[in-house]
Amino acid sequence: MANSLGQIFKITSFGESHGKLIGVVIDGMPSNIEIDLNFIQNALDKRKPGQSDITSQRKEDDLFEIVSGVFEGKSTGAPITILIPNTNQQTSDYDNLKTIFRPGHADKVYQEKYGIRDYMGGGRSSARITAGWVAAGALAQLFLNSVYDIKIEAIVSQIYTIALPKPYNHYNWAQAYDNVVRCPDAFVAEEMIQLISKIKEEKDSVGGIISARILNCPIGLGEPLFDKLNANISKYIFTINAVKGLEFGEGFQTIYLKGSENNSTANSSNNNEGGISAGISNGQNIELNIAFKPTSSIGIRQNIMNKNGEVESLIINGRHDPCVLPRAVPIVEAMLSLVTADHYLLNKK
Amino acid sequence: MANSLGQIFKITSFGESHGKLIGVVIDGMPSNIEIDLNFIQNALDKRKPGQSDITSQRKEDDLFEIVSGVFEGKSTGAPITILIPNTNQQTSDYDNLKTIFRPGHADKVYQEKYGIRDYMGGGRSSARITAGWVAAGALAQLFLNSVYDIKIEAIVSQIYTIALPKPYNHYNWAQAYDNVVRCPDAFVAEEMIQLISKIKEEKDSVGGIISARILNCPIGLGEPLFDKLNANISKYIFTINAVKGLEFGEGFQTIYLKGSENNSTANSSNNNEGGISAGISNGQNIELNIAFKPTSSIGIRQNIMNKNGEVESLIINGRHDPCVLPRAVPIVEAMLSLVTADHYLLNKK
Amino acid sequence: MANSLGQIFKITSFGESHGKLIGVVIDGMPSNIEIDLNFIQNALDKRKPGQSDITSQRKEDDLFEIVSGVFEGKSTGAPITILIPNTNQQTSDYDNLKTIFRPGHADKVYQEKYGIRDYMGGGRSSARITAGWVAAGALAQLFLNSVYDIKIEAIVSQIYTIALPKPYNHYNWAQAYDNVVRCPDAFVAEEMIQLISKIKEEKDSVGGIISARILNCPIGLGEPLFDKLNANISKYIFTINAVKGLEFGEGFQTIYLKGSENNSTANSSNNNEGGISAGISNGQNIELNIAFKPTSSIGIRQNIMNKNGEVESLIINGRHDPCVLPRAVPIVEAMLSLVTADHYLLNKK
Amino acid sequence: MANSLGQIFKITSFGESHGKLIGVVIDGMPSNIEIDLNFIQNALDKRKPGQSDITSQRKEDDLFEIVSGVFEGKSTGAPITILIPNTNQQTSDYDNLKTIFRPGHADKVYQEKYGIRDYMGGGRSSARITAGWVAAGALAQLFLNSVYDIKIEAIVSQIYTIALPKPYNHYNWAQAYDNVVRCPDAFVAEEMIQLISKIKEEKDSVGGIISARILNCPIGLGEPLFDKLNANISKYIFTINAVKGLEFGEGFQTIYLKGSENNSTANSSNNNEGGISAGISNGQNIELNIAFKPTSSIGIRQNIMNKNGEVESLIINGRHDPCVLPRAVPIVEAMLSLVTADHYLLNKK
Repeated sequence: MANSLGQIFKITSFGESHGKLIGVVIDGMPSNIEIDLNFIQNALDKRKPGQSDITSQRKEDDLFEIVSGVFEGKSTGAPITILIPNTNQQTSDYDNLKTIFRPGHADKVYQEKYGIRDYMGGGRSSARITAGWVAAGALAQLFLNSVYDIKIEAIVSQIYTIALPKPYNHYNWAQAYDNVVRCPDAFVAEEMIQLISKIKEEKDSVGGIISARILNCPIGLGEPLFDKLNANISKYIFTINAVKGLEFGEGFQTIYLKGSENNSTANSSNNNEGGISAGISNGQNIELNIAFKPTSSIGIRQNIMNKNGEVESLIINGRHDPCVLPRAVPIVEAMLSLVTADHYLLNKK
Repeated sequence: MANSLGQIFKITSFGESHGKLIGVVIDGMPSNIEIDLNFIQNALDKRKPGQSDITSQRKEDDLFEIVSGVFEGKSTGAPITILIPNTNQQTSDYDNLKTIFRPGHADKVYQEKYGIRDYMGGGRSSARITAGWVAAGALAQLFLNSVYDIKIEAIVSQIYTIALPKPYNHYNWAQAYDNVVRCPDAFVAEEMIQLISKIKEEKDSVGGIISARILNCPIGLGEPLFDKLNANISKYIFTINAVKGLEFGEGFQTIYLKGSENNSTANSSNNNEGGISAGISNGQNIELNIAFKPTSSIGIRQNIMNKNGEVESLIINGRHDPCVLPRAVPIVEAMLSLVTADHYLLNKK
Repeated sequence: MANSLGQIFKITSFGESHGKLIGVVIDGMPSNIEIDLNFIQNALDKRKPGQSDITSQRKEDDLFEIVSGVFEGKSTGAPITILIPNTNQQTSDYDNLKTIFRPGHADKVYQEKYGIRDYMGGGRSSARITAGWVAAGALAQLFLNSVYDIKIEAIVSQIYTIALPKPYNHYNWAQAYDNVVRCPDAFVAEEMIQLISKIKEEKDSVGGIISARILNCPIGLGEPLFDKLNANISKYIFTINAVKGLEFGEGFQTIYLKGSENNSTANSSNNNEGGISAGISNGQNIELNIAFKPTSSIGIRQNIMNKNGEVESLIINGRHDPCVLPRAVPIVEAMLSLVTADHYLLNKK
Repeated sequence: MANSLGQIFKITSFGESHGKLIGVVIDGMPSNIEIDLNFIQNALDKRKPGQSDITSQRKEDDLFEIVSGVFEGKSTGAPITILIPNTNQQTSDYDNLKTIFRPGHADKVYQEKYGIRDYMGGGRSSARITAGWVAAGALAQLFLNSVYDIKIEAIVSQIYTIALPKPYNHYNWAQAYDNVVRCPDAFVAEEMIQLISKIKEEKDSVGGIISARILNCPIGLGEPLFDKLNANISKYIFTINAVKGLEFGEGFQTIYLKGSENNSTANSSNNNEGGISAGISNGQNIELNIAFKPTSSIGIRQNIMNKNGEVESLIINGRHDPCVLPRAVPIVEAMLSLVTADHYLLNKK
């Protein structure tokens, strides 16, 4: 199982949803960076469950502890280990998962691949694991802030049928965190919240689009052939549970442009490329859109296969998000911070 | 610069568009596999330029030579090196590229990143390099064929405004190679060819969508956390020049489905996931769509920045594809073969 | 900083001597292996300080906790994380290390390389970190035991001037753990213990040789060119603090043999190669000798350079081993278990 | 099979002894380094066979060709590929190797591991492959020369019973290449040459010691835990065929020193550590001794096992070195250059 990600700024993840704790080792943090604990906690708070009525009601404070690699408030160059206790496991919720394979989850493939699985709350494949990524991403951001004025941002731009009506750059992205759905337009946000609430009442779920951008990215990040910046970003993004699609710049819309329209030239400058030319950051904003499927865990009765290949009609318990996007916004930001920090250091060689 | 790709079935690429040759080292080919030279040449023939009126007129036979790793017709476990000579370089075409930065190309970012660049035909970032990937992909396919009945296929499903009208599974994909545009519907293919011919006359370019699938993929390929099969496929696919978007299964369309509609259950079986659950192949067909931008190289006069930051009005010479998709079909197949072979071997551990 | 070791059976180490805890993540443990906690504790007990009069008097029970990757007593394929609390830190011992660079230690090079260092008990470079390696090595051994009857053993064969008088294969290696110095000959062990006691009274230190062997190693471990089994063993062994020399089989003595004497042929079979031919295990016992320097930390007054480049005459406090070899025996066994498990899995591909 | 070595300055090796060519891809050479072809050829000339009466009589000029990565005389950052044709294969020599397993060679373990082997001249495990390492090492040296005044040197310090009588630092190492045996003392060199000539007449072989040093190595190369400079040097050195032992600084002799004698302090400065403290270069000269076994290939009749497990009495043909050390000197220098360049770049992060 591959639990390390990154080449120079490398993270190693461990833990399960219902174990004692989850954690992450960050190897490659340069030395002498001030470790702002509030900054890290703030990132975790954005992701933690139980923040609002439209997210999972599992109550986890996600209070973290750094147990290595920091000395007198600064990184030493040694690996930084962050532990986040699990405190609100409701293991009884999962008794009936022991023998069934939930749709859209890892249950069946784990059983086939490993011949054993920790079925409590999804075990290793739980979205809870992403708390470690977010903590590590905050460290990446602290490093990037210390060397360059890069800004990494994400917003919810669409939920089900409700989408931001204007080009995303018209909004003030900083306002996304002003509401629980993380949409920078207050009016649209309210519509999205009502939609999610209604879906929640139906015990169903919805997906949508998160848009993200890296502002003021230095020119030259990304390798020309096999570690293209977009290729590595895509690997990090598709690592996030529930992601089904990704596009850079105009993405799927470039299909409807001729080369003469799509090219950014001296007289018709555009950012159709989304800030990356031939795999390397070109100094423009890096822009991407990410499609998330509706949450697989729903509270509606479904016909589900069990370990013996029999079909059972079941309602699956658990405290699930009717829409993962609001909590996925800080995860997307974390993943982009991690891959950017890694490429920043790769480029220094 | 990263020029190796893969963990166990690993390729190392080298060469430039207008150097003596390009090549690839395949490290990790299991021993005792019969190396069918015709099979490799056939794959290269599908990619080579000059095949039809709608592709680049550069004439390269892409005749390859294996110079290591094969003994008496079989792989020995040693690295297999394939050399493909460059024979039809027209270096004079590129004299005017010495001082200008072509739109949508690596020219400017290379100069910034390395302080030097081989400007002949794009040098290292030329699409010519993909010939090596195709040869390596053929070896991956030979390996896969020897152990499992996996079938990897790609087709052109859309060019500019012309798209296949029916769900892609309704077509016989084997017929894609019956025409030069690689669309499995003869009628639509003819429309596409006429469109590309017209665009070529305009000296402009167009993009589109390549759809791909992996049939009969064994369950269990992909790692649960950081080497998810979809994450690694995405890295390989975005490594292909001109790719701007990627989706698995229903992809961006899952936004418009509720969880109860999207889930594949015992009573409403579907393949909305595109054959991968939680990062691991689930035994269904793996299905993806890939958006390609219109070729950046066009023959229309453009205002272009030069090395001194001045704008020049120029027509860029060269023998370019008005639409890269027909020749990208075997490249997509090769990349999918490579990543599948790697995960097949990773899963054997 | 590189804190991961191994390709498939991979460990990631973290922690400092005087932090809250040290730990290790084992990634690549196959699933469904029974995790025998006593077996792991037993390995840690062999390494822990305070075992006898001739080792460091720091009192650490090295009681470990597994916080991930094990479900109902078995490995799940997920990363296994082992935490070992530090309980007996005497930070006052290290106040005077803040400004001086101890001879033979990492102090000066850390300061130069990172511009900051955790000076408490050696921080990241403390031998305490090896507790994690030993725990991981025990897991490697549990895996190996489940698939093959490989036996990995080490003994102290020489301390300073006192060496085992007969060829090492004449001894019963299992008796090494019958005494605190880990020498399989009771008479020689007693001599060694008295020598170390005397050196301890002098507040000085001594080194020596640890010999190790892998019995019943399957043929074929090791790669022909760049991951030769002996090359990778050497990397693991020189990772152990204080190791200054290594030889396989007859090692430096092969210098005094002609090829006709050194070769193992059908009529004059020998194991001069030490069980590895051309980088690959050949089915004979793998045999090696490892030279350890005398402990750098001594209680004798020394002239030592401080951070300002001035010389100070100092006695360095701390609870050090007058001879590291007895406690290094389980560390050598752990490192050999780790590299063997990794190559066993690499060979399965 | 692992055919890549290094993390940032990475080489990929390919080819067999009796194939068309051997080669190496150097990935990670920084851009804008002048590529001095004579410098590379000079390094190859020191290693090539047929240089003198005491080396193999195979005649290979080892004329190389660079086919990628260099543009107008300078590195571009793209992978540099060097091809070295095989011109003097005498395949008839090896007909009788098809069915027997030579002592001390890879023959038997290859057959077991891969179920197939290229038996011509050792195939992939031939020492001929080291020509690629030497070429790559010359590139590493060109890079190092461009950034720092590091000097990497090796000498033959002992052949069989004939050893340099004085501490190695007393000699002018530059004089080693004044004679065919590469010993810096002309008198001792002559003795060694006569000894080897005599051994050659006996159709037997001898080994010895190569000593090496890195002068003016910058402080800080090497990582504290798992990529210790000595650990990685050891991996590169044990990668060289026929190496059976390695020691740094006083190495095995530190066994006979007490800590108070071995430590380098302000009042008793020494280099017993061999220039590396706790895995990191400390600014002193890095010094090592390497034991080479006698050449396994001898011309004396031996009883040898064949593929069927039967014993044959045979004289093995071929053009072998009665002593590999003279030609191994540039190989040791190349390996040290490669690992130093890699750590220099790793340290820049």
